[in-house]
Amino acid sequence: MFEATKVGRSVSKEDYKEQQEELRTQLLAAQRDLRAFNVPVIVLVSGVEAAGKGEVINRLNEWLDARGVQTFAFWDESDEERERPRYWRFWRSMPPRGEISILFGGWYQTPIEHRFKGHCTDAELDGELNRIVDFERMLIQDGALIVKFWFHMSETDQKARLKELSRDDKSRWKMLPEKSKFSEHYAAFEQVAERVILHTDRGVSPWYLIEAGDRRYRDLTVGKTLLHSIRSRLSEATTEEQNNSLVSPDLPSSASAQITLLDQLDLSLAIPRDDYKTELKRLQTEINELAWTAYNKKRSTVLMFEGVDAGGKGGAIRRITSSIDARLYRAIPVAAPTDEEKAHHYLWRFWRHIPRAGYITLYDRSWYGRVLVERVEGFAGDAEWRRAYSEINRFEEQLVDSGVILIKFWLHISQDEQLKRFKDRENVPYKRYKITEDDWRNREKWPHYKEAVNEMVARTSTKHAAWTLVEGNDKPYARIKVMRTICDTLTEALKRDPTPTTGYVPCGDKRIEDVKKPNGNH
Amino acid sequence: MFEATKVGRSVSKEDYKEQQEELRTQLLAAQRDLRAFNVPVIVLVSGVEAAGKGEVINRLNEWLDARGVQTFAFWDESDEERERPRYWRFWRSMPPRGEISILFGGWYQTPIEHRFKGHCTDAELDGELNRIVDFERMLIQDGALIVKFWFHMSETDQKARLKELSRDDKSRWKMLPEKSKFSEHYAAFEQVAERVILHTDRGVSPWYLIEAGDRRYRDLTVGKTLLHSIRSRLSEATTEEQNNSLVSPDLPSSASAQITLLDQLDLSLAIPRDDYKTELKRLQTEINELAWTAYNKKRSTVLMFEGVDAGGKGGAIRRITSSIDARLYRAIPVAAPTDEEKAHHYLWRFWRHIPRAGYITLYDRSWYGRVLVERVEGFAGDAEWRRAYSEINRFEEQLVDSGVILIKFWLHISQDEQLKRFKDRENVPYKRYKITEDDWRNREKWPHYKEAVNEMVARTSTKHAAWTLVEGNDKPYARIKVMRTICDTLTEALKRDPTPTTGYVPCGDKRIEDVKKPNGNH
Repeated sequence: MFEATKVGRSVSKEDYKEQQEELRTQLLAAQRDLRAFNVPVIVLVSGVEAAGKGEVINRLNEWLDARGVQTFAFWDESDEERERPRYWRFWRSMPPRGEISILFGGWYQTPIEHRFKGHCTDAELDGELNRIVDFERMLIQDGALIVKFWFHMSETDQKARLKELSRDDKSRWKMLPEKSKFSEHYAAFEQVAERVILHTDRGVSPWYLIEAGDRRYRDLTVGKTLLHSIRSRLSEATTEEQNNSLVSPDLPSSASAQITLLDQLDLSLAIPRDDYKTELKRLQTEINELAWTAYNKKRSTVLMFEGVDAGGKGGAIRRITSSIDARLYRAIPVAAPTDEEKAHHYLWRFWRHIPRAGYITLYDRSWYGRVLVERVEGFAGDAEWRRAYSEINRFEEQLVDSGVILIKFWLHISQDEQLKRFKDRENVPYKRYKITEDDWRNREKWPHYKEAVNEMVARTSTKHAAWTLVEGNDKPYARIKVMRTICDTLTEALKRDPTPTTGYVPCGDKRIEDVKKPNGNH
Repeated sequence: MFEATKVGRSVSKEDYKEQQEELRTQLLAAQRDLRAFNVPVIVLVSGVEAAGKGEVINRLNEWLDARGVQTFAFWDESDEERERPRYWRFWRSMPPRGEISILFGGWYQTPIEHRFKGHCTDAELDGELNRIVDFERMLIQDGALIVKFWFHMSETDQKARLKELSRDDKSRWKMLPEKSKFSEHYAAFEQVAERVILHTDRGVSPWYLIEAGDRRYRDLTVGKTLLHSIRSRLSEATTEEQNNSLVSPDLPSSASAQITLLDQLDLSLAIPRDDYKTELKRLQTEINELAWTAYNKKRSTVLMFEGVDAGGKGGAIRRITSSIDARLYRAIPVAAPTDEEKAHHYLWRFWRHIPRAGYITLYDRSWYGRVLVERVEGFAGDAEWRRAYSEINRFEEQLVDSGVILIKFWLHISQDEQLKRFKDRENVPYKRYKITEDDWRNREKWPHYKEAVNEMVARTSTKHAAWTLVEGNDKPYARIKVMRTICDTLTEALKRDPTPTTGYVPCGDKRIEDVKKPNGNH
């Protein structure tokens, strides 16, 4: 596959100078158009050692307008990153719409390294690559352009370059505290790289193999490829936007006729007042202890609450938070997004609040807004909310795989009970603020919401992240059910180590000893 | 001072129930008004051990509308926090306008602990408290309300409470991995607390001493105090805003008549083309090495560029970034703030990008915008930009004290040279995007800018953070001067350990051994 990168192409100094000026002008113009069309661009820079990835990135930074370009490297993991699901760091580096992020290696770096060092099998690598394909597709569907560069050169050229670098005082290779050993196993590394590239070279996010032997050729080719990619992405923009505007909000007409999962909830379930008090106290003590145990074991927890308006989310959440030490949790009420949030993929704002190891985040409403309010109100297009199910499943899978204990609640009440609560709220002074025009409006769309909820639960109640449906007409019953579910799940989860569901064990360098032995790849 | 907190006040269950309902209603209403008036509120919760700070915080979270309240504790420092100036973590927890942040201990926690443990002297503590007073004043002048609670109880009550806690499974005190020893030295702790409170009890941000023996009394008093503080802050809002609108942008009329520091720059300074090339290459190699040395020594660097439009900031920055490994630096072009940025103090957006230990941030324009463009264009009121000088000095002092190497450049060119460059830009295709209507407009305000720059340099060229004025008419000369300054400063700074200028040595628990011995306070 890499033959084409070893033919020895080069560009003369004069040609370079001439072409560079034209290219810069066009790149700057393309950048302005990116901003106008609100397209975010992710540039991934990977390749063999000594191919000059850092040089290329400096060159791009020189050519592009610095307003709107950020560069991210992932070699120096902080504990805030280490203690969260491994994609958190990539979400942190996502460009807002209209801007460019240049990523060193990005999400390809660790899988390649792990396979090369023998920390995972080919099959496990393939599984991870499948997830990468899904991840990239998700970003692209959200409007992003992903441009992936792989820099390659022959073994002889690489050896020469490394020799040159070791003489050059400016060389990173020389300065790096720990030299890595990829270059000493040229063929093995090439083999892993080929597997990765073949597997992830999709039409929507292709790899560009760049011959890196000649610096001028390399840089010009990168610049031109980037320019071409931006231009062709922008030429689609108009057609696509036209299509988008043709999509009408998808309001199923026969929704009210369906019998849903929610209809089967026994909303008459209740608990006597006295039992409630005793049980509540017991469960609060238990949750408090479990939160400390989780802290000491460095396991994090995500508690997610969705439900009918006035379904009792707030009340349940308060019973939980008041039993946990305030130092250990953060409650995130999900309201309208800020403009920084709007400039990113809809999952970005939730990634922001994923807890560090040992901590708890409670989401009062969540990423499911995409398939609930955004679907019903038509804020998300048909294609958008439809693909959100699998995006959400992948997201939750990542949380669980990283050891996060994820518990999802749907608090349900009957339409009559809702009416009663709305009226109550209007009568209790300190509850009045909770009821707005919107609530009454949403109420009229009850059948549509019901269908959306039903489909949501059906499509996103996975083995690793099941929904707990809570019969909410009796508030005490609902609270106890929520808290008992939390206690049971935490108790169970804290007994054992997190077990990734995907077979691919990500590990930082610190944990390499713990992982299975190299399988003789080098 | 604490006598009033030991009289044994209490509230009956019935009174509590009755008053609570009324209080909650009013707190919620006050919260809505906060949002309407865009006032950010910072609640600091401090006090003796076992006074129930966590309980109080849970209570406030129960009473307030969760949308708009966040709680922050500072006991579990991450490396991202440890590797930055110590106030970075507080800036991270600042509420946006209209919202409330509740901080456990906040910026008082460490000074109290350090003095109590004998890691600093009374004089050093006082110095730190002065800085706190300035810091709080700055936030208040920006519109914030700060409500500081100190929970206190008699030694007997505290002993009883600790006994109770050690029996209670829900107690944090019991669960905490390391029990601290404040309570075993009641009198010594009280003495430090008194010093701190007396020193920082200012009219604009008073301390509220709360008797913590009775939980109901404690919680009600906190709620009422908070309510009262918000109400009285809001009642000022209207008058204040009227005053603000009376302040006209301060455009000095005789500016053009003054001879300024800038006039004394010898703009004819230049460097021959050949010398430039040799010297540039040498300096780039040197900067590259110094960046790696700084990385290995975990010293961070802030390079800040201000200057006349078309003064050559971008060109200088590119010469620097292209010589540093792209993994080590981040360049921050300062443009219009996002809405999340607008919702905070103007320094917040710069704190966001302060580098971790070992890294470099380049600011292309900076916090000095406050006393330059915001002053001249009238975006900041008279009082606002006038007090910004000392706010900025304090900010930079903090950076330097934490070991950051800070280098500030002003790139200056003559008015004629600017005109020439503007015209050039319009002729070079890939430079055209750099010139806008604004640039021509700003040019007309040259004398006003000149005066603002002059005052800025005079007021903010401190011993620890001096300005380097760069004669910029000859681009090569300017670039060499910038790079040589960076090399010299870094070389010098990396030779020695950072020396705090303030006499107060902040230290995390990890470094306690390194600090001077306890002075027998316990």
